[in-house]
Amino acid sequence: METRIWRAIVAYDGTEYRGFQVQAEGPTIQGELERALERLTGAPVRVQGAGRTDAGVHAIGQVISFAAPWRHSSEDLCRALNATLPRDIAVRRIGEAEATFHARYSAQSRLYVYHVYASQERLPLLERYAHHVAAPLPLEELNRAAAFLVGEHDFATFGQPPVGENTVRVVHRAGWNALPAQVWGGAPEEVHLYRFEIEANAFLRGMVRRIVGALLEVGAGRLGAEDVAALLEACDISQACPPAPACGLCLWQVRYGQGERGPQERYGEE
Amino acid sequence: METRIWRAIVAYDGTEYRGFQVQAEGPTIQGELERALERLTGAPVRVQGAGRTDAGVHAIGQVISFAAPWRHSSEDLCRALNATLPRDIAVRRIGEAEATFHARYSAQSRLYVYHVYASQERLPLLERYAHHVAAPLPLEELNRAAAFLVGEHDFATFGQPPVGENTVRVVHRAGWNALPAQVWGGAPEEVHLYRFEIEANAFLRGMVRRIVGALLEVGAGRLGAEDVAALLEACDISQACPPAPACGLCLWQVRYGQGERGPQERYGEE
Repeated sequence: METRIWRAIVAYDGTEYRGFQVQAEGPTIQGELERALERLTGAPVRVQGAGRTDAGVHAIGQVISFAAPWRHSSEDLCRALNATLPRDIAVRRIGEAEATFHARYSAQSRLYVYHVYASQERLPLLERYAHHVAAPLPLEELNRAAAFLVGEHDFATFGQPPVGENTVRVVHRAGWNALPAQVWGGAPEEVHLYRFEIEANAFLRGMVRRIVGALLEVGAGRLGAEDVAALLEACDISQACPPAPACGLCLWQVRYGQGERGPQERYGEE
Repeated sequence: METRIWRAIVAYDGTEYRGFQVQAEGPTIQGELERALERLTGAPVRVQGAGRTDAGVHAIGQVISFAAPWRHSSEDLCRALNATLPRDIAVRRIGEAEATFHARYSAQSRLYVYHVYASQERLPLLERYAHHVAAPLPLEELNRAAAFLVGEHDFATFGQPPVGENTVRVVHRAGWNALPAQVWGGAPEEVHLYRFEIEANAFLRGMVRRIVGALLEVGAGRLGAEDVAALLEACDISQACPPAPACGLCLWQVRYGQGERGPQERYGEE
């Protein structure tokens, strides 16, 4: 049977997984996807992901690509995968891609979102997907710090590159917003909810969580905005602040170029 | 040591529990609270809850009361409990109550909230706390049906009473709202999120979920609003629609009378 190239948008609750990438031990998103595809197609399938999310990190817009033999429609493949995958992983859309498409190498940018809630009280319905801090965040100061990160920089302080790559990345935007008070998830009125969005051409390993870790030090008053600029200039990972917890992080969206868009225009762009 | 009466607001993610009330087998919210209190006070403690939430149902405003010996402050008890309880149960506030206070019998009303998301796609980051339906809900029709439930009625169609009680309850309000599009929890823009709120003096066992089940039949076009009125009038549980899944339900708030309010005014009223 002819093998075709597929691309899909995948969402998952990463709490129970050791991350996207297959590990020697423990369940991974890639491992679950490959197992489901092998069961459905009868052939071993290798899945590529646009972002190698860490253990406990979530996704609503991860993009994957793979080569697999499948004689039926893409809608059938989507339904069959969702019937086979664990409940905390969902294939949102799937379609055929050009032969040259590769979820990771074809991606032009990734958008990650980090959620924080500030409350005197711990709230179990929020903390699966948001990091808990005690005091409200000074968003203006945090955004002044985040602005230093925008542009092309050496981010060596904030993460490790894959083998053979350098530590220079281009951050297109980075900033915090307060979310509306009456939100999903069971937040009483006195809780403050925040969303940090950061988009870059690509990220180093652990980069978003170390950046959020530094910005939360600004929030706690232990660092000033200029200290974040100094950390960036140091290019020294030994000076990094502790990374923010994985639970708050979510791979939100992956962008591809016009030529890579394939038949369904909005793939990876919801 | 003198035993004092305490009252507390408790929040929990009910996914992993067999419900509030202690069962012969499996973990329960009451069981975890009693175990933590016994560990902290050295004495067996019986916990009363305002609402006996079913297996898988969540709470952000459950109110409990208990008699326990504790020589330190209420703040210390709150901290100690939160350090002892599993992560998916949190004591939000705690304080001393009058000797006559009983979380269940003193309660004047309970507010339950039910969340639904409508999407072509299954979304793992929403479905832990919201029920998934495929098509957007016709809120006007649903609210027309819900209005029939407001007032004092015999709700025998929708649930079973505790031993020795009848099936008459007073529903103070019941209605649906759409939640803002940019919400917590990783909802893409094309997803519709809804919140159903229902407040009553008390609820029968399974009553909210059977009511939501009937209203979602209206949403799917299989029942009209008047059919819900007819179901109510039938007073016959064998005619009930299948109950909506537990994941969407959350005990939001419990109200007490002025005299039962105790020193901290906002207890049970966040």
